Amino acid sequence: MTINVLGYGTHAATETLASYRFERRDLRTNDVEIEILYCGVCHSDLHMARNDWGFSTYPVVPGHEIIGRVSRVGADVKRFKTGDSVGVGCLVDSCQHCEACHHDLEQYCAGQVQTYNGIDSHDQMPTYGGYSERIIVTEKFVLKVPDGMDLAGAAPLLCAGITTWSPLRHWKAGKGSKVAVVGLGGLGHMALKLANALGAEVTLFTRSSGKEADARRLGAHNIVLSSDADQMAAVANQFDLIIDTVPYQHDLKPYLPTLALNGTLVLVGLLGDLEPTVNTIPLIMGRKAIAGSLIGGIAETQEMLNFCGKHGITSDIEMIKMPEINDAYERLLKSDVKYRFVIDMASLKS
Amino acid sequence: MTINVLGYGTHAATETLASYRFERRDLRTNDVEIEILYCGVCHSDLHMARNDWGFSTYPVVPGHEIIGRVSRVGADVKRFKTGDSVGVGCLVDSCQHCEACHHDLEQYCAGQVQTYNGIDSHDQMPTYGGYSERIIVTEKFVLKVPDGMDLAGAAPLLCAGITTWSPLRHWKAGKGSKVAVVGLGGLGHMALKLANALGAEVTLFTRSSGKEADARRLGAHNIVLSSDADQMAAVANQFDLIIDTVPYQHDLKPYLPTLALNGTLVLVGLLGDLEPTVNTIPLIMGRKAIAGSLIGGIAETQEMLNFCGKHGITSDIEMIKMPEINDAYERLLKSDVKYRFVIDMASLKS
Repeated sequence: MTINVLGYGTHAATETLASYRFERRDLRTNDVEIEILYCGVCHSDLHMARNDWGFSTYPVVPGHEIIGRVSRVGADVKRFKTGDSVGVGCLVDSCQHCEACHHDLEQYCAGQVQTYNGIDSHDQMPTYGGYSERIIVTEKFVLKVPDGMDLAGAAPLLCAGITTWSPLRHWKAGKGSKVAVVGLGGLGHMALKLANALGAEVTLFTRSSGKEADARRLGAHNIVLSSDADQMAAVANQFDLIIDTVPYQHDLKPYLPTLALNGTLVLVGLLGDLEPTVNTIPLIMGRKAIAGSLIGGIAETQEMLNFCGKHGITSDIEMIKMPEINDAYERLLKSDVKYRFVIDMASLKS
Repeated sequence: MTINVLGYGTHAATETLASYRFERRDLRTNDVEIEILYCGVCHSDLHMARNDWGFSTYPVVPGHEIIGRVSRVGADVKRFKTGDSVGVGCLVDSCQHCEACHHDLEQYCAGQVQTYNGIDSHDQMPTYGGYSERIIVTEKFVLKVPDGMDLAGAAPLLCAGITTWSPLRHWKAGKGSKVAVVGLGGLGHMALKLANALGAEVTLFTRSSGKEADARRLGAHNIVLSSDADQMAAVANQFDLIIDTVPYQHDLKPYLPTLALNGTLVLVGLLGDLEPTVNTIPLIMGRKAIAGSLIGGIAETQEMLNFCGKHGITSDIEMIKMPEINDAYERLLKSDVKYRFVIDMASLKS
């Protein structure tokens, strides 16, 4: 049993996105059907639409920062009812049996099912994302949106938010710790907000001097121009944690000496080779580490949403209509967005 | 006040080591004078003698794996008396005021004084190492050798032992954890012994198949040929901790996929660029890390010595006479030693 759904997708790497009708599975007993209200635009959407990573399976309907209202629930669903405000992030299922799943780290499960460009493990149907009118997701992967949270601003929390929240929590950012953030985009601006709300002393590393006022408004206590050797030397051995959100190749050499003893630089955006390469001396001389982190688990995502609800945190967004998505992708390539595009899904049928 | 000491050293990068007389400070009130019985030969000794790192200050008298007997103590010394068996490792002093010192991590103190090629912070005299008849060291940096421990085999514990012990402890190797060791030299063979005694399941990565029997005798439960893609694939996502002791540039790519979720590869030997460079995808896809670690703190070194005493662990050594040091260096360059040269210091005057 399937249902017919209207969305926005692409049939090839070289084509723009356009209106597209496709089939989704109908409700299973543990499924929730969600009427999508808003969907954030992640850089991954663009990469997958254009097959930048080489494993896109077309048609691609992107979107994994999904906010909507529950429209139907399966017979066994316990935590949700019609009308609830809910969210869906990058994952819609996982194996539930492996060590990662047992530790609520579904993002590291080898059997995970991604929200789009995945294959459902029960019926082998391809998954399609949030650039669409509705989605059906197993209850366990549906998040509750806290009461009163701005729904459009909540959408980017499901990827940009959790991707920065997870390393902040894993490496124990909080009162007494010093956190630096590299890059001020969708992820970086969330990292500033979340690290600040967690009580850390927050520094933004930036290459351009024009971002100071905005960075302070978003939660940075200090701004350091990474191109200024004196400013970098002044923060040597300072940071317990550096969240590096930059998604393209860049030099880590200036940042490693700013890590404190036992400090960790966590890459959340850079998929690829560390070019120019890394010298081990600053690592060895201060028991420092370079680590990677991938989105976050479902329980952790709910924790993050609850924390954001309590602290009045959402993403700074720029709302667009569905047909504007191709222009938005072009602007994304120029980092021309403050700080996340969110699609008003009411515009899908316009 | 100084004392005249016979040692073995070099006056230039291009000269071999030879008999050399020099001045050390005389006892301060908190100092211990040690009659040196044995001194291990670390690869660093060779690097420093030959100015491989570019910061050697000549004359260089190497040696930082020192075992001896207390011959005199200053008036304020409390923990040692004449005749005690003691050890001295890579450090003979530190600032005692910084955060690293406050956490017993003197190895990361910017004001640390190395056992040789350092400058004493009180009298500005250069430090000379353990290739000599006696050394004077502030009490806090002198280690107790457990009763009954083989003194010659104990010498390498002071550098090779603690350099592998510290990361094993910091990253919590023990029962239930899986540890792999890359490289079977002075450090690697100690890593096998210590990880095994800590209760971990221990694997040796090796490039040559002839090492199996020796590796098992030293504590490895499994041996994996790192050049065999099938063997490497069979240990994917296995290891909580990899101790990489290889001191020259090598490719980390085969090892990173063998780290478990949250696993860490710790570099203890490679000073320099990670060439070929590292790809971030295996890091991000399993919250894995590449870290560095430097020797260990003084309290931790004592802990290691006590542990070794309890478990009957010393280094496998090849004893040499002092005049054989230049030949030993040549063999060291060919990794032709099982597994550490130790100088019998009685041979100094021969």
